[in-house]
Amino acid sequence: MRFVRYDDGGTARLGLVRGEAIVTLAPIADRYPTMLSIIEGGDTALAAARGVLDTGADALALKDAKLLAPIERPSKFMAIGMNYAKHLEEADRLGVPRAANQVWFNKQTTCIAGPYDAIDPGVTEKLDYEVELGVVIGKSAKKVGQADAKGYVFGYFVMNDVSARDWQWHSNTMTMGKSFDTHGPMGPWIVTADEVPDPHALDLRCYVNGELRQSNNTGGMIANVWSQISYLSTAFTLLPGDLIATGTPEGVAAAMENPVFLKPGDVVRCEIDGIGAIENKVIAPA
Amino acid sequence: MRFVRYDDGGTARLGLVRGEAIVTLAPIADRYPTMLSIIEGGDTALAAARGVLDTGADALALKDAKLLAPIERPSKFMAIGMNYAKHLEEADRLGVPRAANQVWFNKQTTCIAGPYDAIDPGVTEKLDYEVELGVVIGKSAKKVGQADAKGYVFGYFVMNDVSARDWQWHSNTMTMGKSFDTHGPMGPWIVTADEVPDPHALDLRCYVNGELRQSNNTGGMIANVWSQISYLSTAFTLLPGDLIATGTPEGVAAAMENPVFLKPGDVVRCEIDGIGAIENKVIAPA
Repeated sequence: MRFVRYDDGGTARLGLVRGEAIVTLAPIADRYPTMLSIIEGGDTALAAARGVLDTGADALALKDAKLLAPIERPSKFMAIGMNYAKHLEEADRLGVPRAANQVWFNKQTTCIAGPYDAIDPGVTEKLDYEVELGVVIGKSAKKVGQADAKGYVFGYFVMNDVSARDWQWHSNTMTMGKSFDTHGPMGPWIVTADEVPDPHALDLRCYVNGELRQSNNTGGMIANVWSQISYLSTAFTLLPGDLIATGTPEGVAAAMENPVFLKPGDVVRCEIDGIGAIENKVIAPA
Repeated sequence: MRFVRYDDGGTARLGLVRGEAIVTLAPIADRYPTMLSIIEGGDTALAAARGVLDTGADALALKDAKLLAPIERPSKFMAIGMNYAKHLEEADRLGVPRAANQVWFNKQTTCIAGPYDAIDPGVTEKLDYEVELGVVIGKSAKKVGQADAKGYVFGYFVMNDVSARDWQWHSNTMTMGKSFDTHGPMGPWIVTADEVPDPHALDLRCYVNGELRQSNNTGGMIANVWSQISYLSTAFTLLPGDLIATGTPEGVAAAMENPVFLKPGDVVRCEIDGIGAIENKVIAPA
């Protein structure tokens, strides 16, 4: 199933995609008012949603819908850096020290934005893109082994880990440059895990104004999704709805010999085969 | 006012401290069921709470209450590193590179624990303490100047930024070692900002088994609270209820010539004059 959130005259509604239409989940909204509540509801909630999908009427055409980020603000939005080999080489050239372990930072949940929302540069002068596979945690996870990690995934989405490179390197923690408001566009929907047999075999691409900038396969991850969940959950508990950005491949602007950063008017498209595509226009700073 | 959350037979309740007792905020719980809703409620909510404090009956003696963390999980829990001069010198000795700017990382909100809760070491072998002044944001804050920052603070609390030093340095982002479950004990209450005329003139201390390990004054901060709020909000929006850990002074175990890390059975007491004290016992790993 593909879960969407959409705007219905100022109210966020949940729905499922069926062909070119959205089937509204209004019939189960009393029990499951939010995407987080669907995820927390586990198999029971999924069965209820499936029931609506099988019998419900179309609410609106997908093309007419204003899609929102497919999930509300979760407890955690973790992101891994330096997780594709050639992107790591890019970072080497930029003088970023190599870590012996997975490199994690937070994207603040306030940066979450819809799949077609505008990107506001804010105060950065080095605005950059990063296409990534996003993972939604399905069950409370603590000390989960890699062999069991797959069972803790609710689904997948496309995201752009928009980065303010000047602020990212204000310090080694990266924290400040990864979470400007609007810098976490995601979607267009959450594809449930059952429809993604192998998250490590998906082509992903990023285009700026139609020009291909990143192109790789999620199989190029250094630490794969199972290893990421295992590592994170060794330290702390992941909750249902927590988000993981699994890293970006090479081709970011910052690593170009003469970096061409994003500017107002640019359109960034991130797509992952089998998941979907998001497209976001850079606007002038608000 | 001093806001507490306390356990009432498995249910979290809000209250206010009056002398040696807690006045329950049950009379306004329909409008303000959570600490976050009080904060979001602004002056109206504060006036309602004040009304209960002035007229309400004691619910229970403070000494009989099981206090919880004084706030639920907010959207963000930011923490600054290397923010006291002598602690920065400690970090120099440990080979931590100096940053040109404020050094921020996240504590995951899942690490939040009550003022007297146990600290679980988890998988770390280098468990350490850090007494810090905690700040609660009161109003949505974006691009707030230092001169205006005080108006965005709801209140203050005591916290221990418990740190797993081995996992902290798994990478330069520090993220993994700052958020083990239970590693964010805080409280014992939130003191409203009107009762703290100057947050930069408070003595703070940390004791381990009664032995003084850290002793300084919040005036020793390199970036003060107003500067922190201004810097953070230049990049992204702080929301009502967001938490800031403002840094720790020198005296942490990691910086000792022969580090004496925390071990099961140790009792860590963090106190800040004019705010309060929290005390947490280290248990054997669960």
